[in-house]
Amino acid sequence: MSDEVQGWLAERTALVETVLERTLPDPARPPQTLHAAMRHLVFPGGKRLRPALAMAASEAVGGTPEAALPMAVAVELIHTYSLVHDDLPCMDDDDLRRGRPTVHIEYGEEVAVLAGDALQSLAFETLAMGAGKERAAATIADLARAVGAAGLVGGQADDLTQGPGCGDVESVLSIHARKSAALIAVSVVGGARLGGADEDLLFELDEFGREVGVAFQITDDLLDAGEDEGCSLVPLLGEADCRERAEALLATALARIAVLDERAEPLRALARFAVRRGV
Amino acid sequence: MSDEVQGWLAERTALVETVLERTLPDPARPPQTLHAAMRHLVFPGGKRLRPALAMAASEAVGGTPEAALPMAVAVELIHTYSLVHDDLPCMDDDDLRRGRPTVHIEYGEEVAVLAGDALQSLAFETLAMGAGKERAAATIADLARAVGAAGLVGGQADDLTQGPGCGDVESVLSIHARKSAALIAVSVVGGARLGGADEDLLFELDEFGREVGVAFQITDDLLDAGEDEGCSLVPLLGEADCRERAEALLATALARIAVLDERAEPLRALARFAVRRGV
Repeated sequence: MSDEVQGWLAERTALVETVLERTLPDPARPPQTLHAAMRHLVFPGGKRLRPALAMAASEAVGGTPEAALPMAVAVELIHTYSLVHDDLPCMDDDDLRRGRPTVHIEYGEEVAVLAGDALQSLAFETLAMGAGKERAAATIADLARAVGAAGLVGGQADDLTQGPGCGDVESVLSIHARKSAALIAVSVVGGARLGGADEDLLFELDEFGREVGVAFQITDDLLDAGEDEGCSLVPLLGEADCRERAEALLATALARIAVLDERAEPLRALARFAVRRGV
Repeated sequence: MSDEVQGWLAERTALVETVLERTLPDPARPPQTLHAAMRHLVFPGGKRLRPALAMAASEAVGGTPEAALPMAVAVELIHTYSLVHDDLPCMDDDDLRRGRPTVHIEYGEEVAVLAGDALQSLAFETLAMGAGKERAAATIADLARAVGAAGLVGGQADDLTQGPGCGDVESVLSIHARKSAALIAVSVVGGARLGGADEDLLFELDEFGREVGVAFQITDDLLDAGEDEGCSLVPLLGEADCRERAEALLATALARIAVLDERAEPLRALARFAVRRGV
């Protein structure tokens, strides 16, 4: 990332941190354990890639980063809830995430289930309260579809039940599209919708987000190669082919938004970063 | 319930069954197991009390039952998700519900977590798609607050962590208010909002719903007395006092809506039924 984009990102990330802090319930107020558990994976968080995409998408279509904040916060809350539930003993059974104990290790399994549940509700509450009446319903519908049985949760269900190898390239791509790309695409679409994009542009940005999202997940497969967790394209295609596919998806995605002016540069830079990180 | 109200209820319940059937994803389409698990506790369901309250509230304020359908369906989906997660081994660890195996017994624990998660998303999707732009955001905010850390999930968290006896009357009432009454109140408020009620009336209906909801839960405590599951007022106050409190809450609640005309009769009858069932 150029210095310019890194500066852009630092400012936007500071903004989203502030609003996340304000959005999560106060851990000093009851029920304290639930509130602490809800915050455990949010602070400190990860790269905040999804919030950054939402704000970049708003700016790419001529909106402000602030307009996209309800979506930026909502997708980070959803991302966190999905990690908390994925880490549970009955799912991926992970004790550590980002070098810290997972929520069920720190607070118990029942609290982890409930904290994930409350984070999901809070995501929708944030959109309903912040997005402006005329656009709230559309962004909430977008988000709910992206994360429900047809999206994130359905992808995770298939990931868990596919068994070793996860079948052929097509079924791994289908899982990647739902488990990872749907939330990335809705971050872009939701941010752009709140930034004022029209339906034609939203369609292209949705496709852009899905392509970047699948390429992002292929990069994840490459970075995790050998760790043997979840469905991966690497054992099916090999590293060189995977890298090529990720680059091809990125190129297609960037071509879709070639029509946008220089205000789309941060969005393009984030897409490249998502796909090329660690390379 | 009078024959007239029973006829009213049968018609409304048939309506909500049809829309629930249309709303839940097709179990013949993938991911089949997830879809089947989402349907497991919805069909056959329970009394459909919350959907009936939503439709009765709409009619009480001069709206149609159809106007309240998105809320009626959403609260039933939320109610079902909360039961699926409450039954999990790490929570109440129940093998049976309504005489059938619980979702995690039938489909596995990981599928039960995911099915609950997807039911929650589907509730918000249903409101976002069905409620009409101008009212969708308000009903979604109402619902999200009622079911999140300050409502249903917070009440369940306290219920699980209170330990035997659950403390004093005040803390049991606080748990009842969040774990049971919040969803009942939002069924009434959401239905009335979609039926066109103004803010003053919504305030009274919210209080009405909370009072009926707590009284409903006290009745549950009375019906479950001796089963020793979760927090209960019965060991703290005795059966006679509990019955008296439930009746007093019902009377206060009904007095709040005395101003409404005969179109509120089904709402009144449902409130009486909720509090007096099994007596």
